[in-house]
Amino acid sequence: MRDAFERRDADAAGRLGSLSVPRAGVTVETPALLPVINPHIRTVEPSTLEAEFGAEILITNGYIFYKSDEYRQRALDEGLHDLFDFSGAIMTDSGSFQLSEYGEITVTTEEILRFQHDIGSDIGTPVDIPTPPDVSHERAASELATTQERLELAETVDVGEMLVNAPVQGSTYPDLRERAAADAYATALDVFPVGAVVPLMNAYRYDDMVEVVLGAKRGLGADAPVHLFGAGHPMMFALAVAAGCDLFDSAAYALYARDGRYLTVDGTEHLDDLDYFPCACPVCAQRTPTELRETDDETREELLARHNLHVSYRELRTIKQAIRDGDLLELVETRARGHPAMLDGYRALLDGVDQLERNDPVSKGAFFYVSNESAHRPEVRRHHDRLDRLAVDGDRVLLSEGEENSRFDETWRLKPPFGPYPAALSDSYPLTAEVPERLDRDAYEAAAEGVRQLVEANPTVEFTVAHFEWPDDVLESLPDGVEVLALGDDSEYPDSGGQGDARPREANPNGDEPKDEYVDGDEDGQ
Amino acid sequence: MRDAFERRDADAAGRLGSLSVPRAGVTVETPALLPVINPHIRTVEPSTLEAEFGAEILITNGYIFYKSDEYRQRALDEGLHDLFDFSGAIMTDSGSFQLSEYGEITVTTEEILRFQHDIGSDIGTPVDIPTPPDVSHERAASELATTQERLELAETVDVGEMLVNAPVQGSTYPDLRERAAADAYATALDVFPVGAVVPLMNAYRYDDMVEVVLGAKRGLGADAPVHLFGAGHPMMFALAVAAGCDLFDSAAYALYARDGRYLTVDGTEHLDDLDYFPCACPVCAQRTPTELRETDDETREELLARHNLHVSYRELRTIKQAIRDGDLLELVETRARGHPAMLDGYRALLDGVDQLERNDPVSKGAFFYVSNESAHRPEVRRHHDRLDRLAVDGDRVLLSEGEENSRFDETWRLKPPFGPYPAALSDSYPLTAEVPERLDRDAYEAAAEGVRQLVEANPTVEFTVAHFEWPDDVLESLPDGVEVLALGDDSEYPDSGGQGDARPREANPNGDEPKDEYVDGDEDGQ
Repeated sequence: MRDAFERRDADAAGRLGSLSVPRAGVTVETPALLPVINPHIRTVEPSTLEAEFGAEILITNGYIFYKSDEYRQRALDEGLHDLFDFSGAIMTDSGSFQLSEYGEITVTTEEILRFQHDIGSDIGTPVDIPTPPDVSHERAASELATTQERLELAETVDVGEMLVNAPVQGSTYPDLRERAAADAYATALDVFPVGAVVPLMNAYRYDDMVEVVLGAKRGLGADAPVHLFGAGHPMMFALAVAAGCDLFDSAAYALYARDGRYLTVDGTEHLDDLDYFPCACPVCAQRTPTELRETDDETREELLARHNLHVSYRELRTIKQAIRDGDLLELVETRARGHPAMLDGYRALLDGVDQLERNDPVSKGAFFYVSNESAHRPEVRRHHDRLDRLAVDGDRVLLSEGEENSRFDETWRLKPPFGPYPAALSDSYPLTAEVPERLDRDAYEAAAEGVRQLVEANPTVEFTVAHFEWPDDVLESLPDGVEVLALGDDSEYPDSGGQGDARPREANPNGDEPKDEYVDGDEDGQ
Repeated sequence: MRDAFERRDADAAGRLGSLSVPRAGVTVETPALLPVINPHIRTVEPSTLEAEFGAEILITNGYIFYKSDEYRQRALDEGLHDLFDFSGAIMTDSGSFQLSEYGEITVTTEEILRFQHDIGSDIGTPVDIPTPPDVSHERAASELATTQERLELAETVDVGEMLVNAPVQGSTYPDLRERAAADAYATALDVFPVGAVVPLMNAYRYDDMVEVVLGAKRGLGADAPVHLFGAGHPMMFALAVAAGCDLFDSAAYALYARDGRYLTVDGTEHLDDLDYFPCACPVCAQRTPTELRETDDETREELLARHNLHVSYRELRTIKQAIRDGDLLELVETRARGHPAMLDGYRALLDGVDQLERNDPVSKGAFFYVSNESAHRPEVRRHHDRLDRLAVDGDRVLLSEGEENSRFDETWRLKPPFGPYPAALSDSYPLTAEVPERLDRDAYEAAAEGVRQLVEANPTVEFTVAHFEWPDDVLESLPDGVEVLALGDDSEYPDSGGQGDARPREANPNGDEPKDEYVDGDEDGQ
């Protein structure tokens, strides 16, 4: 059992937790952002990151110190914390990035881990092999074997209280990522970076990124803190957290600022293209883009870096609040509209619905149906999977979007996208969901799937579906033997009092109160 | 021809423009927010609104001054601008709100317009009848007649350079809103508030709000500035702007603050429920929710009001930038995921696609396909409507998601959601659209609709559709006589070189450059 990471709250595969970093004597709240500090170019001072942005952790490159005439000895003498004037946790990288960029580095895992320890790093990194995307399965597997040897070697190096990263490689092969993760998890190492995803990010391949992360997560226990290595753009933080990532590192805030680029949660803008700042951070609230363009280069770069940090930390706070409120997937829904590639990422996440379902809490604040994708959320899948556990009373059962009807032995409610449920569960999550008046085909199809599962679980019961204007072909997809009644201006119940004029509006459109769960569930699945 | 309002840029039915307010000697950039100032409770001083938030215009209630022992004479003596220490434009309301809340007021249109003029208002308001939603058509029409009498009376009152509002009523009847708007537009009055929408907002009836606005817009010329009266929540600004609104007024910033409520672009939070601030404004970047809860009542209320103003002005800047970039609908897509009722609002907006299409510029920055709703955007409709103007060369034409094929007389490209287009148009808006790898049914159906329109326009041509894994029933919906070829791992072109392995990824995932239009269009439709 690992004890560095504690999960305090969960939503989808995302977690709000804390990472204890014993050597620094601090506990870092996750999801956390690690600003990358290049000792040669300190756009924003680490002490400013700590005081103004609340940074609890940062990352710097141990290999740069190792190779630096200027900083090597200073780091050994003073230690990173004094050198940076930073009291939070400091993670160091090993030079693997340089290895992937330049093909070779002149240090071994043993040397670099010892060096990281000696300069006062709190979390060190062995020299893994960052296999790029789309190489052959054979090459990816072979490089993985080398990475695994390095991890096993790293276990044997005495680094005191320093935590050690166990990078998970495997290129774009989810099976290899899963195996790599399981092997890494079997070591005594502490933190699990999913490596070599930067090329995927740069190519906007968020669907592949999600598949890689979900693969790695399948190999890791719930107590494994997961770092999406090299991922620093706030547009994908929510998606990556929902897939199960806990740590991000950002060089982007500074690199983009150097280029005049301005980060947003929907993408990247160039300062030259902005007439208005779509942001209220202290940098943007006090000046116009024109004014910022007219400041001197150094000030402009620092102000842009500060904006980039503000938007990044804001997004992490937004994500944490969403996990607390149980609406992380609603946040991902919103972010998915920033770019078609983000929508691909969200759709890939929902393709992993069974994996999400295993980790998702059984009761949350409110389910908002806000797109066709909402029909494919884990809560819908879970409701369908549990229909066979709900007892049906009677031989003739009405499943109704409208009123009860006493001509049937029992009336269940019917609500897209969930489908049928007993009236007694109306106040239980997720059936309290807010759904739009204007429903889409995915919602109707999911509801029909719910009907199908209920019919399958109760083959001797006669079911009747009473609906408001479901599409014909969705009705035709219902199992044989299910009767269909259209509700509308005039009730078509043969003997009922006749209400069903139109689908009634929800009385409480906010509906934000937490709801009780309706079946026992294993809330701590992951 | 009206000359107070000038449209400088447009997107969907939204406009970026300027409203000249001659009596104030200022030009207000629109979309604009008018903070509501209650002279009795000034949570944030007007001079602060001007200096710190860049407010160019505000609104106060002329009737409150008219009835106030404390302020009536001061306003007459000093004028509103000196009283408020505000150099921008000042709009005044007439007491119609009090009429709708309390059933009667003790002033006539003539008296209140003269009074508004005398206290120095720059834009005054007659006493219209704010008919609530869902009343009978008869009552709505009858009250509308009274409102129209008041507008015609207002025309005759000499108010110097003061602009005068011509409220558009008509309850929840789009036909009445259209007629009311046409009648109001036929007067000499200046600004067009869409009135009595607050009950719709309070009930989250954004779909009805959109229908009411689209109705009003049909009765107004493109030179009419439109004010969504009483609408101050930033979650719906983008949707309302896309439907054609130019002005908003916010009492919400202050009223919500009094209650401890915190505005976001996705809804409302209560300060007590927040563990983290999902915002980077100067209020939120410098403190935690716990710290804000612990400040004294007066400071907390002012800080919350400041946050609420920051998020509101930020949203307006975001909207203006989106109009400049031509991605206002992408912003609305994002905001539509804040609440199921916002999705209803967006779906209602797209139900008015023909009306949007008439106003939408023919060329914009980039079309991002980011949801099933994207398939229903005006650009898709316009492409379909124009397929009959594009010349087809040859008797046998291939419409292909893959490569060209010389066995056909001509190969056109085929791209969901647009459908077919000649290769020469590949670099033209909107066919440069970024679409996700994982397409949805709405995209395929829209593409099939494009094929249908092309086939109908060219009844003698033999068309073949070469596709990557379109759903079977979408293929079946293609017109009779269209041949279908599946592209896949092995090309199924009988004699081609064989490429079509898989749908190729877009080379340039950012694709943000402006693209040329491809057909002459009436860019200034509205």
